[in-house]
Amino acid sequence: MTFDYTSFFRSDLPAPAARWSGFPRYNFVGGHNDADQVPVDVLADAARDALLREGKTLATYGLESGPQGYVGLRALIAAKLQARAKIACTVDDILVTAGSLQALDLVNAAFLEPGDTVIVEADCYGGTLGRLKAAGVRAIGIDLDDQGMRMDHLASVLEDLKAKAVKPKFLYTIPTVQNPTGTVLPEERRRELLRLASDHDFPIFEDDCYADLLWDGERPPAIRALDDEGRVIYCGSFSKSIAPALRLGYIAAEWPVLSRLIALKKDGGSGALEQMTLAAFDVDRFDDHVTGLKRVLKEKCAVMMSALDEHFGTSAEFKAPKGGIFIWVTLPPAVDTTALAQAAAEEGVTLNPGADWSTDPVTGRQKLRLCFGNPTEDTIRAGIAKLAEICHRETGIPARSANIERTDA
Amino acid sequence: MTFDYTSFFRSDLPAPAARWSGFPRYNFVGGHNDADQVPVDVLADAARDALLREGKTLATYGLESGPQGYVGLRALIAAKLQARAKIACTVDDILVTAGSLQALDLVNAAFLEPGDTVIVEADCYGGTLGRLKAAGVRAIGIDLDDQGMRMDHLASVLEDLKAKAVKPKFLYTIPTVQNPTGTVLPEERRRELLRLASDHDFPIFEDDCYADLLWDGERPPAIRALDDEGRVIYCGSFSKSIAPALRLGYIAAEWPVLSRLIALKKDGGSGALEQMTLAAFDVDRFDDHVTGLKRVLKEKCAVMMSALDEHFGTSAEFKAPKGGIFIWVTLPPAVDTTALAQAAAEEGVTLNPGADWSTDPVTGRQKLRLCFGNPTEDTIRAGIAKLAEICHRETGIPARSANIERTDA
Repeated sequence: MTFDYTSFFRSDLPAPAARWSGFPRYNFVGGHNDADQVPVDVLADAARDALLREGKTLATYGLESGPQGYVGLRALIAAKLQARAKIACTVDDILVTAGSLQALDLVNAAFLEPGDTVIVEADCYGGTLGRLKAAGVRAIGIDLDDQGMRMDHLASVLEDLKAKAVKPKFLYTIPTVQNPTGTVLPEERRRELLRLASDHDFPIFEDDCYADLLWDGERPPAIRALDDEGRVIYCGSFSKSIAPALRLGYIAAEWPVLSRLIALKKDGGSGALEQMTLAAFDVDRFDDHVTGLKRVLKEKCAVMMSALDEHFGTSAEFKAPKGGIFIWVTLPPAVDTTALAQAAAEEGVTLNPGADWSTDPVTGRQKLRLCFGNPTEDTIRAGIAKLAEICHRETGIPARSANIERTDA
Repeated sequence: MTFDYTSFFRSDLPAPAARWSGFPRYNFVGGHNDADQVPVDVLADAARDALLREGKTLATYGLESGPQGYVGLRALIAAKLQARAKIACTVDDILVTAGSLQALDLVNAAFLEPGDTVIVEADCYGGTLGRLKAAGVRAIGIDLDDQGMRMDHLASVLEDLKAKAVKPKFLYTIPTVQNPTGTVLPEERRRELLRLASDHDFPIFEDDCYADLLWDGERPPAIRALDDEGRVIYCGSFSKSIAPALRLGYIAAEWPVLSRLIALKKDGGSGALEQMTLAAFDVDRFDDHVTGLKRVLKEKCAVMMSALDEHFGTSAEFKAPKGGIFIWVTLPPAVDTTALAQAAAEEGVTLNPGADWSTDPVTGRQKLRLCFGNPTEDTIRAGIAKLAEICHRETGIPARSANIERTDA
């Protein structure tokens, strides 16, 4: 096999993938979930029942529901959005996608050209930042505090852009259990955000992927629920609430947007069996499932926070997330988390370095994201201990942990 | 809802989608299949068994198989490719995709930039031609005869390109049950194609989507099976053999190619439940299923050919396809099939106009593709009668059919 493809590939390709060799022992990256919480029995019966009932419709692309997705699933999504996010919508307002990643790709493809500007949270989902960078788009980060995106900073950035006659293509936000900070934007800030968007006239892309995993209390209404101008494009996912390997997300938006996204969605429809199967849930059953899942995740989160306290002591700064599957940690300035991630990966500990999850590479390099949804509690404890050991060896930090002064021995 | 998105969208978007209002009564477009042939019982048991057995692995992206896809399904694909297409490969050589459409998108994304040249068959799958056009790529068509792509024409085109110092990025071909002509490229031409590709030094992208639906006899080895230089990227699909709404295709290629495609496949993995379910087939079970399916499709094809003879008489020229789900028809020069398709759609008859399925718009406008996989035999007969009636009204052709002289009454 001698053919050399090098000169035939595009010149701007990302680095080639390495052979996959299994998950690392201490895997703290990726939106994975707790294996025991996958509702296997419900899904098994639902898949079988759906196939026996209407499996023949698999003979046509899009089943008999058209390009927006299986109408039974869209009905569940609409009911769920009404009940939980307070979004008034019908099956006509929903587009089912192959996970929320396809939702990002479709919205980006509809709006963005090289040189465009998009506003994001200063700490932001790495998959979004990577996509914007690949599209040649400038991402401007807005500072976050304990209540999510700071509206005073947003207002000043918008004034600045206005002075430069730059109009953002949209503002992308994860307002409810923000990724990676785990914060929740209060309703009053959501309303302020809409006022600013109206004053400066730009659309909002609301990514609500983690909203179903808010530990306690009622979630604020979605920004889209508070919007009476139709300027919010909303996306969500079943990856975090049911199972990540089921590739099902959704977009709720006005028809002038949906009709553009559908025209760009040239995939022959999203996976039909997964859509038919998930449609067996109703809102109550979904709520019951998510209630149990959140209990487990909250406990794992507590274990990880406790392990961080134990092994990193005051070196690791973090706020307890309001929900979700990750903790956003800041280490002292002496630690470069990109270098740490490389050293740790060689010993079976993976983490997301903050430089990939922040619009500010300088502060980003002190930060890291740690996911706790999938590893067991024992694995979390052992993995954080291991990470502290590696970090100490590489950087001298933490100097002390678990009441033991660390040495280089 | 007053927000106007117009100035925010990219300037080069395709036309927005129209609201879907159900399939037309006489639907002769799309790669749909016979509803009664969907192996519903097998799939229902397989889905349930797979979920009960290993549903917990849905908690991680990619299950426990990594980004190339569920290893159980890759094992089936490798065994099937060995048995049917004579391709020697292992699970390591396979990438599972969301239908062959994603395979096209990934290969295009890895190779093509605006201004590039790709060689295709002169009559070619519209989805491929549309993608090349959207990518700003020039598609050069090679003439077809009863045995597929003509190697003498290819040789002369390659000499011509060489004289102009133009090197194609790849040659895209559907050699086995070509879409839309239904021809099969004989083994000797496959070997000649490889010789020409080697002499002129370009890769081949072999799309074998319809190969499992060859009516009779043994299929020739895949071009990839005859290639000892590793220059063939091969793709296939379960859409035509099992069910189109299950979004599962696959690529077999050398690692230098696969590693690039995996790096571009940022979708969180292909649908896991569909992969786990299909993996319940083995080669024998797949063969048994396809044998029954082909019998039904061949009979529907005969019904459509008979209806075309009856209602269009000598006005409709076509060759019996060697397999598949479509017939490629040429009408007299007076008929513009793009206009005919519009008139017919208004009366519930849909067809693919040849201008979208040909690199030569002049000869393409006389041609049309008619799909027979999904409609019942009665629907095929009634739909072709209706199409002849509309065509006569719009163009005067056919003048006579079914032994009845048509009038404009």
